[in-house]
Amino acid sequence: MMERISRGLEDVDIKWTRLTTIDGERGILRYSGYSVEDLVNGGASAEEIQYLFLNGELPREQELRDFSSKVERGYHVPAHVLSAISNLPRSSDAVALQMGAFAALAASERFKWDKTTDRDVAASTIGNMLTITANVYRHVEGMPFTEPDPRGGYATAFLRAALGREPTDEESKAMNAALILYMDHEVPASTTAGLVVVSTLSDMYSGVTGALAALKGPLHGGAAEAAIAQFAEIGSEDSVEKWFQENILSGRRRLMGFGHRVYRTYDPRARIFKGFAERLAPRNPEAYKYYRIALKLEELGIAQFGSKGIYPNTDFWSGIVYMSIGFPLKNNIYTSLFALSRITGWLAHFIEYVEEQHRLIRPRAVYTGPGERRFIPLASRS
Amino acid sequence: MMERISRGLEDVDIKWTRLTTIDGERGILRYSGYSVEDLVNGGASAEEIQYLFLNGELPREQELRDFSSKVERGYHVPAHVLSAISNLPRSSDAVALQMGAFAALAASERFKWDKTTDRDVAASTIGNMLTITANVYRHVEGMPFTEPDPRGGYATAFLRAALGREPTDEESKAMNAALILYMDHEVPASTTAGLVVVSTLSDMYSGVTGALAALKGPLHGGAAEAAIAQFAEIGSEDSVEKWFQENILSGRRRLMGFGHRVYRTYDPRARIFKGFAERLAPRNPEAYKYYRIALKLEELGIAQFGSKGIYPNTDFWSGIVYMSIGFPLKNNIYTSLFALSRITGWLAHFIEYVEEQHRLIRPRAVYTGPGERRFIPLASRS
Repeated sequence: MMERISRGLEDVDIKWTRLTTIDGERGILRYSGYSVEDLVNGGASAEEIQYLFLNGELPREQELRDFSSKVERGYHVPAHVLSAISNLPRSSDAVALQMGAFAALAASERFKWDKTTDRDVAASTIGNMLTITANVYRHVEGMPFTEPDPRGGYATAFLRAALGREPTDEESKAMNAALILYMDHEVPASTTAGLVVVSTLSDMYSGVTGALAALKGPLHGGAAEAAIAQFAEIGSEDSVEKWFQENILSGRRRLMGFGHRVYRTYDPRARIFKGFAERLAPRNPEAYKYYRIALKLEELGIAQFGSKGIYPNTDFWSGIVYMSIGFPLKNNIYTSLFALSRITGWLAHFIEYVEEQHRLIRPRAVYTGPGERRFIPLASRS
Repeated sequence: MMERISRGLEDVDIKWTRLTTIDGERGILRYSGYSVEDLVNGGASAEEIQYLFLNGELPREQELRDFSSKVERGYHVPAHVLSAISNLPRSSDAVALQMGAFAALAASERFKWDKTTDRDVAASTIGNMLTITANVYRHVEGMPFTEPDPRGGYATAFLRAALGREPTDEESKAMNAALILYMDHEVPASTTAGLVVVSTLSDMYSGVTGALAALKGPLHGGAAEAAIAQFAEIGSEDSVEKWFQENILSGRRRLMGFGHRVYRTYDPRARIFKGFAERLAPRNPEAYKYYRIALKLEELGIAQFGSKGIYPNTDFWSGIVYMSIGFPLKNNIYTSLFALSRITGWLAHFIEYVEEQHRLIRPRAVYTGPGERRFIPLASRS
């Protein structure tokens, strides 16, 4: 009976997709046919890839301008969405704050799945997410709320709104790359949770709320934080070897930021993040310390686990990039930045599912409990 | 390639469970071996069944007292959880308001999965849900917030808090039955969404938020509202036959509240709800009008569809019971009452999954998009 259970749905194909394909053996991630390396190195902007996910093709100049203006209209969010953030303690988990903001949108916005409007609502929701994430960060840091200035595109507008200063070109490029690299990755738990939600024809905002609830978990979005928390624990480059022997070689603990259920080689996203870490970290003493710890730890990890197909994944290097830009390691902020990017993949999967392959998701469970019993009232129970 | 897809996960066993077994052919629903008819007719209280779900056995008197005091401690919720409700427009969807309140709990409450404390947190969360649901209703109705008085048990405490008056015995019995009847139903979309969330080891409150997001959908929790909205549209007993011919026999529309993916006969929960509707509706003119419409519609529906295994499901009758007690048909309130009951099943499934059969849920998708393409920069694109 138990062997019938599809544990973790590991070999189950839940949908088809035109969005993302992962070659785990060769370490290639493609978005609608374009490798992420090619996109980042070729100078694609996050909004071009947001358009690609929602429309299947890269935009021409006018199409991109139209799309961007729809996204930018979403930068203005209703006041009660911002109150849903400010109402909660500053010590709150950043992803839970995003959840609260999206629940507020679900509460008040009228929404109906409709092929003629779904993509416009998605574009505006991607805009909402920028304002929500920037202000979640500002709330945690005790800074006043802000409405984004769209100049310079999505990555720059986000950094300016969140940090309250003009980002450098290199920071904008790194943020733009992070937005692209985390934008979609087939159907991990967050995307799956959101798909289950929208399979009931619940609204787009509720789908995002469900996806955020899953992303919040330490086995999913929390992994970037866990990797960098591990660097913090190690403390210095000199301690890496001893720490590795005592904790990893001894089998006492898992090496965070290593290994992936799909990749059997170096995660292509990790390689790009590592390049940005190399360029940005030297300007930030704490990030640079972590960068040097990570370099050494990566070397030991690959020597030990590489032959088993266990390599650094994207979370190993992304935290150092976020830290270099100025985001602190606290309140699950790095996971909220992951969500800022991934929302595009979520929405694109939702639209594919509801518009073209919709079916209410309702699996079964194998019953293993007691057989038929007769109820005995409380007073007669012994 | 497409035939590999497990559409709607229809034939996929996602977990094992000791909680619920459904005999769809014979129309029997059992909780850990006890049929729901036996439980309701035998006088079980909602809190006894909450205990059964979390502990596998019915409680003895002292065990029930201990459990109830843990639930009642949850009646007090942090102020920011109530503000998460009051902050949103009164016209909001009631289930989205519950989502906002649970996102607020996820934001501020420390939680870690732990076999020694999971059941206590679940009991307290069931208590939180009573206060949240009662005050969601009060917010929608423009009434001041209240802290529940626990006298009389869960069903009575809820009605007193929500309605602001002492419920009659018959009302308490009907609410108690509704709490039991909707408490679990294997792994529908809401439970599945929550399971995907907690499979990342995200917290219990986030699991509930994800489940609520799915329940909100018109194909899931919205069904009770859809059934009664249909009665409202028909308007009077005399119009049923004509409406049925024009809308249902013609094939133009689906008969709401009829049919279920699992049951091929009369839903056992619907039969019990129908009994309460029969006793309670005559005291409320609007509910009684709907009751008489429903009786006639049921007769026509069974005559037409019964031979195909399509019968009234629980949603066909539950709305009339809620309306008879005094809850108005608006803002998705009936679905929020469904959630008040179902939260126990959600939490019990989460605990079974995380404690005994945990695995990160990550299905696959079949890629159907374009093959390898080279990126062309925006300026060179035509």
